[in-house]
Amino acid sequence: MQTLEVSLGERAYPIYIGTQLLKQGELFVRHMPQPRAAIVTDSNVAPLYLQRLTATLAEAGVQVTPVILPAGEEHKNWESLNSIFDALLAARCERRSTLIALGGGVVGDLTGFAAATYLRGVPFIQVPTTLLALVDSSVGGKTAINHPRGKNMIGAFYQPQAVIADTETLNTLPDRELYAGLAEVIKYGLIRDHAFFDWLEPNIEALNARDPAALAYAILRSCENKAAVVAADEREETGERATLNLGHTFGHAIESGMGYGKWLHGEAVAAGMVAAAKLSQILGLLGADNVGRVESILARAHLPVALPALGADRYLELMGHDKKVEGGKLRFILLRAIGEAYLTADVGRDALLQALAASVSHD
Amino acid sequence: MQTLEVSLGERAYPIYIGTQLLKQGELFVRHMPQPRAAIVTDSNVAPLYLQRLTATLAEAGVQVTPVILPAGEEHKNWESLNSIFDALLAARCERRSTLIALGGGVVGDLTGFAAATYLRGVPFIQVPTTLLALVDSSVGGKTAINHPRGKNMIGAFYQPQAVIADTETLNTLPDRELYAGLAEVIKYGLIRDHAFFDWLEPNIEALNARDPAALAYAILRSCENKAAVVAADEREETGERATLNLGHTFGHAIESGMGYGKWLHGEAVAAGMVAAAKLSQILGLLGADNVGRVESILARAHLPVALPALGADRYLELMGHDKKVEGGKLRFILLRAIGEAYLTADVGRDALLQALAASVSHD
Repeated sequence: MQTLEVSLGERAYPIYIGTQLLKQGELFVRHMPQPRAAIVTDSNVAPLYLQRLTATLAEAGVQVTPVILPAGEEHKNWESLNSIFDALLAARCERRSTLIALGGGVVGDLTGFAAATYLRGVPFIQVPTTLLALVDSSVGGKTAINHPRGKNMIGAFYQPQAVIADTETLNTLPDRELYAGLAEVIKYGLIRDHAFFDWLEPNIEALNARDPAALAYAILRSCENKAAVVAADEREETGERATLNLGHTFGHAIESGMGYGKWLHGEAVAAGMVAAAKLSQILGLLGADNVGRVESILARAHLPVALPALGADRYLELMGHDKKVEGGKLRFILLRAIGEAYLTADVGRDALLQALAASVSHD
Repeated sequence: MQTLEVSLGERAYPIYIGTQLLKQGELFVRHMPQPRAAIVTDSNVAPLYLQRLTATLAEAGVQVTPVILPAGEEHKNWESLNSIFDALLAARCERRSTLIALGGGVVGDLTGFAAATYLRGVPFIQVPTTLLALVDSSVGGKTAINHPRGKNMIGAFYQPQAVIADTETLNTLPDRELYAGLAEVIKYGLIRDHAFFDWLEPNIEALNARDPAALAYAILRSCENKAAVVAADEREETGERATLNLGHTFGHAIESGMGYGKWLHGEAVAAGMVAAAKLSQILGLLGADNVGRVESILARAHLPVALPALGADRYLELMGHDKKVEGGKLRFILLRAIGEAYLTADVGRDALLQALAASVSHD
């Protein structure tokens, strides 16, 4: 087991990465103020891991309330959130009861937001079971639900007590979700870790094939990058944390425009990162060779590299609802090199339209 | 104008108390990162003050989006919260746009929670227009909505940028709401300020009659007490902040049991404080003379001093859902003297039943 620390002062917490962690009750109990927990999971993950974790906790003396949500991004909404509240209230969960998020990014975001707001805040533990959640959404304290007008519009910054990442849960992950997770892994190389990107290029097929050593290394390195960014800019105030959103302005537009759940988040981000790279190229920041490297590694991870053809006007409208809008101006994460991203509001409409035209699929 | 500071480190903020403050645009603008705001108010307050505040802000160059909610505690729910989100998204309010809560406690709690969660947190300013909001809910950062199973079950701790309290708004307050606000004023004397209680006893009729000097003094002293408690225990961790809930365990049961909106919050708290005093007496903590003083001053402020007859079992059930429950045990704020309150989980069922029997109305 590896342990990473997310350095956030009084909100600091550990990330445990290893195998067989779902069987280690002590690891959970040490982060729970009271031997009482609700495990929130979804209809995909429950049949796989709910019983195992419940048994582990029961053996450790913890009283467990299970909450099973319907699976899918389209359920990341108020209705699911409220069904968590209903279950917590029916079970009389208290301020010191712990919420455990067992699942992917949707479960983590919903559970985290429930923990942030139930009785004005209760402890929670993230147990990510997808690659995307392992390397991205479970680290950093962003929680949210979607609104019909946009993704993650309602939420909170709320840090967990711990992230307990059992990499064996990846064995049951569908290929498509594995690849979607790799999009975020590749993102860390692109935004701040050139050496990691250089490692990823020859290792992407090993990751596709779930080589345990390659996956373990990629997960650890991704979490290290994420933890460092979050520690430097917890609430997205300096712009550093915003770089984690490379590809996300386009990506959110895809998810929202196609209807939540049609594209996986990582797939939308992959196509969005290519669009961001092309936008960077159009602005004279990035060479065609590097744009090619971005496109190629994502394609090798079986990820989409072109935007769906929604129409330029629709993209502009969808992106106008992004949280990164400021003073009415869209903000983008651009690349000035592999491993070097920055936030800017200084993108003209013409450049953006050109990037959209260059990035849209012609299928 | 008087200025008080709520000392919360990086979350510190000022409370301005005075007259004509709704006309001072500069006071608002200095706390807004961007000249853009949504004023959230309700159908009672909008006809009285919305136009004035909108004009003041427009003169100061602020672009304003008004949001008018239906008035009443029964609307302190997800539906109202969501109508705020809808309006903010339709107006494309951004992370640096400010939410202004113009109204009483319900508007303040709803707007504060919307500010805490819209785009994961935007600035907000409290402009309380009721005595209750002036002396209690607008200070301290507690925000929430109700859930069918209990009051304030879903919420966040989220501090405003400033509280701007124009005492002239009290001129339009119905008598019943003025009295309900006095319940919380009296509470500060009871829990931590014996000298203030001694001042209140001979001055309660002046307050009932809205004597400006008496009101100004009572408001300032109440805010000082509230600010001191919040600064000492922002997130209700040491038990000190919990003392602000004197009478609230009973009071929430009344509000919930009678149906939200039937009793005003301050009315329920008044009857609850008498019940808490009687419980303290039954436990041998408080003399009958002091219980009499509590009952008498509340009655003189035209407040109810007996619990409605819901039945002891129903009270126990309703109180079991209170946020103050811990380890399955109810927690109560008790008085060991006028001006000295403390939190305890050490109340036996018999004493509680006795207190309920002694406190229930026999009308």
